[in-house]
Amino acid sequence: MQLGLIGLGKMGGNMRERLRRAGHDVVGYDRNPDVADVASLAELVERLDAPRVVWVMVPAGEPTRQTVEELGELLSEGDVVVDGGNSRFTDDKIHAEQLAPKGIGYVDCGVSGGVWGLQNGYALMVGGSEENVAKAQPIFDALKPEGEFGFVHAGGVGAGHYTKMVHNGIEYGMMQAYAEGFELLEASEIVDDVPGAIKSWRKGTVIQSWLLDLLDRALDDDPKLAKIAGYAADSGEGRWTVEEAIRLGVPLNVISASLFARFASRQAESPTMKAVAALRHQFGGHAVKEDADG
Amino acid sequence: MQLGLIGLGKMGGNMRERLRRAGHDVVGYDRNPDVADVASLAELVERLDAPRVVWVMVPAGEPTRQTVEELGELLSEGDVVVDGGNSRFTDDKIHAEQLAPKGIGYVDCGVSGGVWGLQNGYALMVGGSEENVAKAQPIFDALKPEGEFGFVHAGGVGAGHYTKMVHNGIEYGMMQAYAEGFELLEASEIVDDVPGAIKSWRKGTVIQSWLLDLLDRALDDDPKLAKIAGYAADSGEGRWTVEEAIRLGVPLNVISASLFARFASRQAESPTMKAVAALRHQFGGHAVKEDADG
Amino acid sequence: MQLGLIGLGKMGGNMRERLRRAGHDVVGYDRNPDVADVASLAELVERLDAPRVVWVMVPAGEPTRQTVEELGELLSEGDVVVDGGNSRFTDDKIHAEQLAPKGIGYVDCGVSGGVWGLQNGYALMVGGSEENVAKAQPIFDALKPEGEFGFVHAGGVGAGHYTKMVHNGIEYGMMQAYAEGFELLEASEIVDDVPGAIKSWRKGTVIQSWLLDLLDRALDDDPKLAKIAGYAADSGEGRWTVEEAIRLGVPLNVISASLFARFASRQAESPTMKAVAALRHQFGGHAVKEDADG
Amino acid sequence: MQLGLIGLGKMGGNMRERLRRAGHDVVGYDRNPDVADVASLAELVERLDAPRVVWVMVPAGEPTRQTVEELGELLSEGDVVVDGGNSRFTDDKIHAEQLAPKGIGYVDCGVSGGVWGLQNGYALMVGGSEENVAKAQPIFDALKPEGEFGFVHAGGVGAGHYTKMVHNGIEYGMMQAYAEGFELLEASEIVDDVPGAIKSWRKGTVIQSWLLDLLDRALDDDPKLAKIAGYAADSGEGRWTVEEAIRLGVPLNVISASLFARFASRQAESPTMKAVAALRHQFGGHAVKEDADG
Repeated sequence: MQLGLIGLGKMGGNMRERLRRAGHDVVGYDRNPDVADVASLAELVERLDAPRVVWVMVPAGEPTRQTVEELGELLSEGDVVVDGGNSRFTDDKIHAEQLAPKGIGYVDCGVSGGVWGLQNGYALMVGGSEENVAKAQPIFDALKPEGEFGFVHAGGVGAGHYTKMVHNGIEYGMMQAYAEGFELLEASEIVDDVPGAIKSWRKGTVIQSWLLDLLDRALDDDPKLAKIAGYAADSGEGRWTVEEAIRLGVPLNVISASLFARFASRQAESPTMKAVAALRHQFGGHAVKEDADG
Repeated sequence: MQLGLIGLGKMGGNMRERLRRAGHDVVGYDRNPDVADVASLAELVERLDAPRVVWVMVPAGEPTRQTVEELGELLSEGDVVVDGGNSRFTDDKIHAEQLAPKGIGYVDCGVSGGVWGLQNGYALMVGGSEENVAKAQPIFDALKPEGEFGFVHAGGVGAGHYTKMVHNGIEYGMMQAYAEGFELLEASEIVDDVPGAIKSWRKGTVIQSWLLDLLDRALDDDPKLAKIAGYAADSGEGRWTVEEAIRLGVPLNVISASLFARFASRQAESPTMKAVAALRHQFGGHAVKEDADG
Repeated sequence: MQLGLIGLGKMGGNMRERLRRAGHDVVGYDRNPDVADVASLAELVERLDAPRVVWVMVPAGEPTRQTVEELGELLSEGDVVVDGGNSRFTDDKIHAEQLAPKGIGYVDCGVSGGVWGLQNGYALMVGGSEENVAKAQPIFDALKPEGEFGFVHAGGVGAGHYTKMVHNGIEYGMMQAYAEGFELLEASEIVDDVPGAIKSWRKGTVIQSWLLDLLDRALDDDPKLAKIAGYAADSGEGRWTVEEAIRLGVPLNVISASLFARFASRQAESPTMKAVAALRHQFGGHAVKEDADG
Repeated sequence: MQLGLIGLGKMGGNMRERLRRAGHDVVGYDRNPDVADVASLAELVERLDAPRVVWVMVPAGEPTRQTVEELGELLSEGDVVVDGGNSRFTDDKIHAEQLAPKGIGYVDCGVSGGVWGLQNGYALMVGGSEENVAKAQPIFDALKPEGEFGFVHAGGVGAGHYTKMVHNGIEYGMMQAYAEGFELLEASEIVDDVPGAIKSWRKGTVIQSWLLDLLDRALDDDPKLAKIAGYAADSGEGRWTVEEAIRLGVPLNVISASLFARFASRQAESPTMKAVAALRHQFGGHAVKEDADG
């Protein structure tokens, strides 16, 4: 089938490739003319036969908002917009309501798979009405991995990004669990072969996983991770997961601890621990280390 | 090769079966005569040709200590004892030193695989000298999963149980991460198909894993886990992991939070939260709920 | 000076009393005519000479929003509204902007002190312009405790509620720390006199505090807290504290753990721990407890 | 009364001074002859009339163990040894059993008060038999603060150090709570006067405490704590608290998070966060920061 695809970066570019390999007719637009098939959103819409499906794959927040708005002006009744970016689930309702008056459908789709998706397929978590999801189903079928897993129509508008958000929260917790285990092995005076220990876990254990395979891979390249700084960014989904848990009154100790560990990893100096050190000095006369910059 | 195997419970019994399928000659002993091949440890030792390898698969702590002690009396120079139980790594040095004067070798082996090991193989994490490990290597090769993973000789005596201990600590963290994600999806007002969401994650996602497959399996049987109480025991390795982290000064926020969640799951009433409620009442006149038993 | 005071509940009623004792002329309004001095907001405004100061002491959220809106219609240029309720700091900017076009000033004031404030004074954390804060200063002076502490003009609009919000976040953490210590003493096999231990801490220790005095007081009444359920509500400030930390990328492990402990205290059954129990059953054949309701 | 006091460092020296001011006859011994009243333990014992009370105020662990052992040789039936150091409660039973055969009593005493104790008195948490505690009571009475608080006979041998251990665990949690609040205020874009906010909390609030007074004091000297590094040592009691909680199955989320924050504060680079960064790079192609030393 035909698909309009907006955003041809690392993810979008690979998705176009996977869809074309599956025989779909993808018209891609990107601000970067070197990778784009058309010169404008208007041209993209023009190139597609109605009813159109247009997949938005641009950064969450303002870029997605603007793109949805422009599409609302260009598209017609019966067309469907799929937001495949990392939007917060609360944005989906807004986008859907923006498009509804003109009869344009909206589907949100959380996409997992990263740089491996081109080859292995992308896991897709979808929210929207049955009718709108059905219009994009051939595209979902081509993008998803082979077999019975890797796709869910999880509920109405927003349910796709919600499911993806929770997926990412779990991801934070799992990564932190592996990483804490790695640190403990490294600190051990008794385990000599840390990369070997981790490699051994890849089969037959309770903790075997794809993330573990990747950790092993990273240690193959750099057995002590000496080349990598202990600095981890976060792209928002972990924050949203904890915020949603707070809203709903759900205790989320592990996922929040993982999020906070990332925050801490980005601090050169911890004001919290300055205050603790100051207090210890005040009541116990404990020596403090001077801040090198202080 | 010949192997003496002590302890034929759920794990030991399956291991005997897997070893026999691989053509090894296993002489099994258990306190339960219905499953035992011999009537006593003495008879077991007698049935094996020197140099003997005897695998101990009994509960950690006192039972293992007693068995090692008895074997120390029955075995001879050049024989090797493998402790495949869930012993704390600090016990291994004691066991090894107990056997050393008589020239009996000692190898510790952390075993993962649970009820699935018979079919899939057991992941083995081994500690001991090259010489002693080599004597048991054919047994390790038969027990481990096929392929390059699932076995490591991680270091000297204790390194096997240490590696298994860290494995279990990671397991706690991963399980808690998935479980928190499950709770958030359940609490969500927007995701309609929670089991479907979790099933979809099994392929193409960053969080695909064997544990996730099992969670999906559990939800196939009981989509809301309505039949299972929120009560989780712990068998010691998680506690040892956190204790070792404390000894080494390693921050272990996620794994310790997972351990504490299990402790809390076993409390009918939380004294901590009684005290919080009492304090809120004192300063704010906030109403308290009466303890139904109070 | 004259003050209009809206909301004469537990807090507002005591504040009126403290202000009258200090010689101020307080005109109080409440929906409950039994405690009100006037029958309507309009009458309250009429009774005050311009420039008026009107203190709003009603529940945060909708009630405060409505009251500020009505006051916006009734008050005149140069008057000042003080929001002394537990509003979220993000509401303050909205309220201030609502009143600004008419030249009505806005001050936010976080109030601490609970049921003890009438006697000891209320700690006041204030945000707003110098000019507006100055108009209410005699009121602040009468409400605050004697001495140099208990009052701060922390910054512009919102800074008062922000400071109070952080105060409450700290309060969560402190209460949880004391409560965890109480539980550990209770669990100890070696400390016989838990209330005595806690009472001893009230002087000469590093952890002496007013909260500790209250814990001692609670134990005087009920030495094992047998009459109180381990159930703790939360009134919002803890949630806002963690949400703000997430927004700013500040790691807040202790305060968030305290918040989550309250969430957990309100669950009859933990879906998270159901999932952990289900997983343990799946891989290890560990027995699960059946949910009594399942 | 007479007291033998061993260890005249920062704490012991001040305690001798406070006891002398109260009219007691203190014979002090220290390895440093400049501060000692006698040249040896033997001379100290000789200088005291039986039944003797000897207070040990030396570092926990080996130094205390050796001192108790020597005293066991020098003292006689009916004498009492008081261990006022920071010993782990599990050491107390060992010490008591060492002295028992000769009829020498043993009392453990956790001491709080730090550099402020000379002036304000020391809070004392005591374990031992009624009889032995009674022999040292005049000393306890002179050391403790005035009034009804600051002293408890919490139970048998070990109960004193146990109570002090829990006190310190709570202290960790409280300090961390204040410190997190400080960091959030510092990060705020809305609160202009952070030291003023904290100072205001000293009276009328729920979180007023001696620790808060000290934090205010520290900020008086250095309003942004610019001169102090975010590095906090730990002297053992926090570790023991968490270890004991693990032994007893008590969830201790806040106190353990505070302990781990100290561990993390002492790491130049976090191996855990290196592993997290490595994983993010593997699956998402996320850029990593190179370790400056890598």
